[in-house]
Amino acid sequence: MVEQSLLQGLVVKNTTKIVMLVMDGLGGLPMQPDGLTELETARTPNMDALAASGQCGLHEPIGPGITPGSGPSHLALFGYDPVECEIGRGVLEAVGIDFPLTPQDMAARGNFCTIDAQGNITDRRAGRIPTEVCQRLSAKLQAEVKIPGVQVFVEPVKEHRFVLVLRAADLDPALSETDPQMLGVPPLPVKPLEPAAERTAELVNEFIAQARRILANEHPANMVLLRGFAKHPTLSSMTERYGVKAAAIAAYPMYRGLAKLVGMTGLPSGNTVADEFTALEQNWADYDFFYLHVKKTDSYGEDGDFNHKVSIIEEVDQLLPRLMALKPDVVVITGDHSTPALLKSHSWHPVPLLLHSAVCRPDRTKTFGERACTEGSLGVFPAVNIMPLALANALRLTKFGA
Amino acid sequence: MVEQSLLQGLVVKNTTKIVMLVMDGLGGLPMQPDGLTELETARTPNMDALAASGQCGLHEPIGPGITPGSGPSHLALFGYDPVECEIGRGVLEAVGIDFPLTPQDMAARGNFCTIDAQGNITDRRAGRIPTEVCQRLSAKLQAEVKIPGVQVFVEPVKEHRFVLVLRAADLDPALSETDPQMLGVPPLPVKPLEPAAERTAELVNEFIAQARRILANEHPANMVLLRGFAKHPTLSSMTERYGVKAAAIAAYPMYRGLAKLVGMTGLPSGNTVADEFTALEQNWADYDFFYLHVKKTDSYGEDGDFNHKVSIIEEVDQLLPRLMALKPDVVVITGDHSTPALLKSHSWHPVPLLLHSAVCRPDRTKTFGERACTEGSLGVFPAVNIMPLALANALRLTKFGA
Repeated sequence: MVEQSLLQGLVVKNTTKIVMLVMDGLGGLPMQPDGLTELETARTPNMDALAASGQCGLHEPIGPGITPGSGPSHLALFGYDPVECEIGRGVLEAVGIDFPLTPQDMAARGNFCTIDAQGNITDRRAGRIPTEVCQRLSAKLQAEVKIPGVQVFVEPVKEHRFVLVLRAADLDPALSETDPQMLGVPPLPVKPLEPAAERTAELVNEFIAQARRILANEHPANMVLLRGFAKHPTLSSMTERYGVKAAAIAAYPMYRGLAKLVGMTGLPSGNTVADEFTALEQNWADYDFFYLHVKKTDSYGEDGDFNHKVSIIEEVDQLLPRLMALKPDVVVITGDHSTPALLKSHSWHPVPLLLHSAVCRPDRTKTFGERACTEGSLGVFPAVNIMPLALANALRLTKFGA
Repeated sequence: MVEQSLLQGLVVKNTTKIVMLVMDGLGGLPMQPDGLTELETARTPNMDALAASGQCGLHEPIGPGITPGSGPSHLALFGYDPVECEIGRGVLEAVGIDFPLTPQDMAARGNFCTIDAQGNITDRRAGRIPTEVCQRLSAKLQAEVKIPGVQVFVEPVKEHRFVLVLRAADLDPALSETDPQMLGVPPLPVKPLEPAAERTAELVNEFIAQARRILANEHPANMVLLRGFAKHPTLSSMTERYGVKAAAIAAYPMYRGLAKLVGMTGLPSGNTVADEFTALEQNWADYDFFYLHVKKTDSYGEDGDFNHKVSIIEEVDQLLPRLMALKPDVVVITGDHSTPALLKSHSWHPVPLLLHSAVCRPDRTKTFGERACTEGSLGVFPAVNIMPLALANALRLTKFGA
């Protein structure tokens, strides 16, 4: 990994444009030993042509054998050390609903749950209440909880899940969680994990006490559980690090939110993959770096739906000529991690990547797929190296030393 | 990267001989999308034979995407961390004219420039005066500047460029530069960037004041600009690190100078590549490690002259049997960085490398070229790993641990 301080000192500005097209969970596995992966199965003449004239490899978001979440894998794609810059779950959840976090804010993931007359938990998810109920209860908590000196936000997510955001000076998220992860016991009180977090623990316990009273007559959602306390990470922006004006095109708010954490502008992106390509065309003149995120490759992978994952890849391939017609200087096509339909989950397998520019060194790869990429000239490499490579191919890095 | 302390503890001495043949800027690119690189185009039957019986790969001098200068790329070839051991511009310039720097010396790059009656710069390069004028003015400054307690050297380079070397105890190069990089303003005074550099700043300002008086009646070169203040880096020698007696065969002084910084003996090397091979033959008995540097692959790359770069590679290939006739135990053939004729500059692209010894593990590579090396068993790897590999193949490293 190139040290950020070294890289930043080499950055020069020019008018080149870089596109990073991320198919979420792209990497896959064959469903049977002699089979092909999702990407190998998909008919992708446009990506194959780019692979033939560009160069290929496979990246590891975190390290060998490590299965990444979406937060760290995206940070790595954007060139940020994903271990050093960990994003707390509360922040990810807030970012996922487009909540505009400020540096003061502390966020936590909340569940509505059910407790019995003795205060013991009988259902950690309150029977997965409908989202409408979650919305009503969240609004009720937000309206009725009063903590002096603290602004409280209770934002519904989906079913039993909500986000709690406290806004006040000097909040410290070094707090224990209240979910005991078992039934028949009461929720745990929040405890400070460091002396500096004592006041914050008192504030959160006060929120919980008020929530218990306010929800007492509700059923089944008559209590809350909180975990993943976290504050907005203060990351230097991609503009500061790489001198690029960066935009995110992502239909799902969490990915837009992740991109905003590194200083990208979130663009209106529509609902379909085609909409996203339209957003790219419409905003082409205004940015240097575009992150375009396709979600459904991952969703179908998580569902174990091999064939639909294949068809999303083919849909992207058919849209690719629209991207290439814009004449980007550098195109990177990859995923943020693997989500093989076989495993129905994220996995540790390295992620296929192709890089195309007028000054890349072509290798012998002729198609875009896991096995083909293994023979590519980029080899298997850490995801944090993608940005330096993209910048070099955009001629945005000057020489190191004389 | 193997820690130097670990490596050094494993070094054993024997009588094996290692040759590192460096074709400067070897790595290249095709001139058109479907084309071959310079090395792939060159007819290299002797290197191909070595590739077939040896092993291949590509090295990255600094890191992915980073384009190296000659200083750091050579340090990496010699096994020194090129980021940690950065060499200042003044030192590189001094080394480039074969000036024998001592650890006391502080060197700077100088320009003769033109100032008007108000002292404002009207030409930062004094109209690129002929080298003969530079020689006369340098000699004049050297003869007439007197600073008590300091030995002053003013060494001409080429056209308007000279090297200033101050020799005294406790000089500190943490100094600001005097070149304002613009016209119509006076040269800047040197300022200490750290308190310890205050006295050195005074000495340099005294040099500048005297130079201004001495040059007052010259035209157009009536003033000096100074930048890149640096001291000789104190690097442990290759003998200390690797137990080898090392010699440098390099027609260009800068590369001989770089080799001397790591303790190599600079051998008289003639003017042609054939002369360099003669120097190798004549000194074969006296050293364990030979660094043989071919400059013109880089020069033609910088000129954008694909065909001449190809012919230099072919010239080296034709001379290779003279090297192999000496029966070296380990031969490494590579470049210090890529200089594709397409880009007319150094670049970040990994550099082809072949390693040959009686005990290397042959791979399937049959020719020496960028794409062939991609499939070699060494993969893409950091340049600092070359020396440990060469030493291992020379059986000069003992076992780590029991």
